[in-house]
Amino acid sequence: MESIYLNKNEERRLLNGHQWIFSNELKSVPKDIEKGSVVKVFSAQNKFLGIGFYNPHSLISFRFLSKRETHIDQLFFESRILRARDFREKIYPKSTTNAYRLVHAESDFLPGLIIDKFDNSFSIQTFSAGMENHIQTICDVLIAHFSPENIVLRNESQLRELENLPQEKKVLLGNPTDLIRIYDTEIQYDIDILNGHKTGFFLDQRENRKRIRPFAQDAHVLDIFTSDGGFSLNAAYGKAKEILAVDISEEALKRAHHNAEINQLKIENLIKEDAFSFIEKLEHEERKFDLVILDPPSLTKSKKTVSTAIHAYKKLNRSAIKLVKKGGFLATASCSHHVGEDLFLSIVQKAANDAHRKVQLIERAAQAPDHPVLISMPETQYLKFAIFHVS
Amino acid sequence: MESIYLNKNEERRLLNGHQWIFSNELKSVPKDIEKGSVVKVFSAQNKFLGIGFYNPHSLISFRFLSKRETHIDQLFFESRILRARDFREKIYPKSTTNAYRLVHAESDFLPGLIIDKFDNSFSIQTFSAGMENHIQTICDVLIAHFSPENIVLRNESQLRELENLPQEKKVLLGNPTDLIRIYDTEIQYDIDILNGHKTGFFLDQRENRKRIRPFAQDAHVLDIFTSDGGFSLNAAYGKAKEILAVDISEEALKRAHHNAEINQLKIENLIKEDAFSFIEKLEHEERKFDLVILDPPSLTKSKKTVSTAIHAYKKLNRSAIKLVKKGGFLATASCSHHVGEDLFLSIVQKAANDAHRKVQLIERAAQAPDHPVLISMPETQYLKFAIFHVS
Repeated sequence: MESIYLNKNEERRLLNGHQWIFSNELKSVPKDIEKGSVVKVFSAQNKFLGIGFYNPHSLISFRFLSKRETHIDQLFFESRILRARDFREKIYPKSTTNAYRLVHAESDFLPGLIIDKFDNSFSIQTFSAGMENHIQTICDVLIAHFSPENIVLRNESQLRELENLPQEKKVLLGNPTDLIRIYDTEIQYDIDILNGHKTGFFLDQRENRKRIRPFAQDAHVLDIFTSDGGFSLNAAYGKAKEILAVDISEEALKRAHHNAEINQLKIENLIKEDAFSFIEKLEHEERKFDLVILDPPSLTKSKKTVSTAIHAYKKLNRSAIKLVKKGGFLATASCSHHVGEDLFLSIVQKAANDAHRKVQLIERAAQAPDHPVLISMPETQYLKFAIFHVS
Repeated sequence: MESIYLNKNEERRLLNGHQWIFSNELKSVPKDIEKGSVVKVFSAQNKFLGIGFYNPHSLISFRFLSKRETHIDQLFFESRILRARDFREKIYPKSTTNAYRLVHAESDFLPGLIIDKFDNSFSIQTFSAGMENHIQTICDVLIAHFSPENIVLRNESQLRELENLPQEKKVLLGNPTDLIRIYDTEIQYDIDILNGHKTGFFLDQRENRKRIRPFAQDAHVLDIFTSDGGFSLNAAYGKAKEILAVDISEEALKRAHHNAEINQLKIENLIKEDAFSFIEKLEHEERKFDLVILDPPSLTKSKKTVSTAIHAYKKLNRSAIKLVKKGGFLATASCSHHVGEDLFLSIVQKAANDAHRKVQLIERAAQAPDHPVLISMPETQYLKFAIFHVS
């Protein structure tokens, strides 16, 4: 195993529980270390700190794996994946769901590895060169402990470029041509794990979708960027009077319609339009709703475009707030990694000031508990969700 | 109406939605303005900014009431209190509860006024000299719109000293000698609005008490600082296997016992002990629990004692984490105004590091939605609550 050495004092973040070392924190390293190999890391004072994946092509040069010098083999993956499974089975007993994020990368001490479980099919994403080398071992663990029907690799994320990894989609096991039916307590969804967004379905908004139910009763609901219709289905389940849902993707709206049908729920108006211009139109028409849900896709993928994203979030939230009746509610989300919670909430407040409306925050949340957050690693929190009373 | 003038640029916070002006932000003011009177406030450039309560004895010299010059009379209070009521009735329909915080001071644009509703009895606290002058009007509004049985004034908080207000307890209407039964969805509580903690009951942890239920099933539960037993009752409702609850107050434990009885729920062990030393004892005995709940009273009332509080929170959380079984859960809270959420979470992380345990954050919340937060006024958020998976 090769060794790398940190610059002076750069071990502090690691000792506090962070798992990354950036390229500028390293002393010169041997040139011949292979991308994705497991290396030992030492402080500038030659203190052994642990082992991890090394990638010379990434700004994140090192991803921590263990404090001890241990074999990164099937036993290692078995131990971490089964610990993650036991955790999930406690928070999501079978009576409540057959789908969860089994492994949430760094948050489950498996850097760069995402595994979503949909019934007994699995959807995998990797975001680190190191993890890429162990896909077969990871599949072996899944086969040994979950008897999976299908395993697919959904490595289509642009973020993989940061690790110098190609984009690809592969079936590793089975033949997942049919939709997979999952249930989330009272609501069912049919998932296309080969062609759906990301791993096939947004599990991260699971609890937030339920949070809007009490506000939906007898309400006129507007669901902006409805995607597969998750929020709208929960509004319908919460006995909304009428739902207007908008998305630009024909495919997503088809899935929303299909999911409404299998649940015998009704989304009255599924509109294919660009959400940005559509809400401006509604605003112009002075339409008002009891509940407005605003769940846009990530508006920035990098730090460089944060100011553009801030501008867009403010504009969207200002329009959304204007569309809320006096005494109604706004549920607003942001999944941009580079917009923190404080910043996001202050954007909403400024949007309210601009709209000459008062907003009182009544609930605030992050991603679902199967996407846990490490306090020592702020990067593990990305989803912001908030419900406001608007007057 | 007298006028006061801000120093240069001190209007910015106010214009962004904050409601306080501190004494050092004011130019010299007329000496004869009476404590609690309504004054006009102007920027250094003589721009009219609004009206509010003035108190020459408080560091918070001015509390904002309105952008317009309006009468602070029964109509004014009626409008704000009824807006707050409509909001509460939406989030807490009668089918779910007969108790809520009707007015949460600045968060409901009524600075320094707290009103809790328990069935049709009301418990009031005031924290500003201005509000103090209007108690009778506020009672008149309650009488006109709620047909209250009892109204009590629970002005025993030490924080009133900051406004140069005396501590007192008064019955303003009725004869509230009997306990008042409230229901919070599935659980009932008997409230003593004259002698219970603060206004009689901690409504602010309502949702958080429910949040622990799924983690209580079949669990050995430790409830540290159980007070009236709210968390324990919810753990029992969530089908805990065995509950150990500790508090130093005999009175609180009696209420916990009584509330368990009226719900036919069982808190197996209600222990009268100093929680600080009791958990050290449990730690020494190497006792382990599936779920540990840690909800200490405020450990600091002022900025001066924050470092002592940080130390105490860290110690308590370290012990609590050590008492969690591998793969169990910690629910931990802080109600200290002067310890922010980021600081609180970092204390828990450090406590985990010290205990050589890993913690993954799975849920994070503030006070209940009838205690709304204003983003423009960070002081309105005080309760921090978090659930961690501990391994």
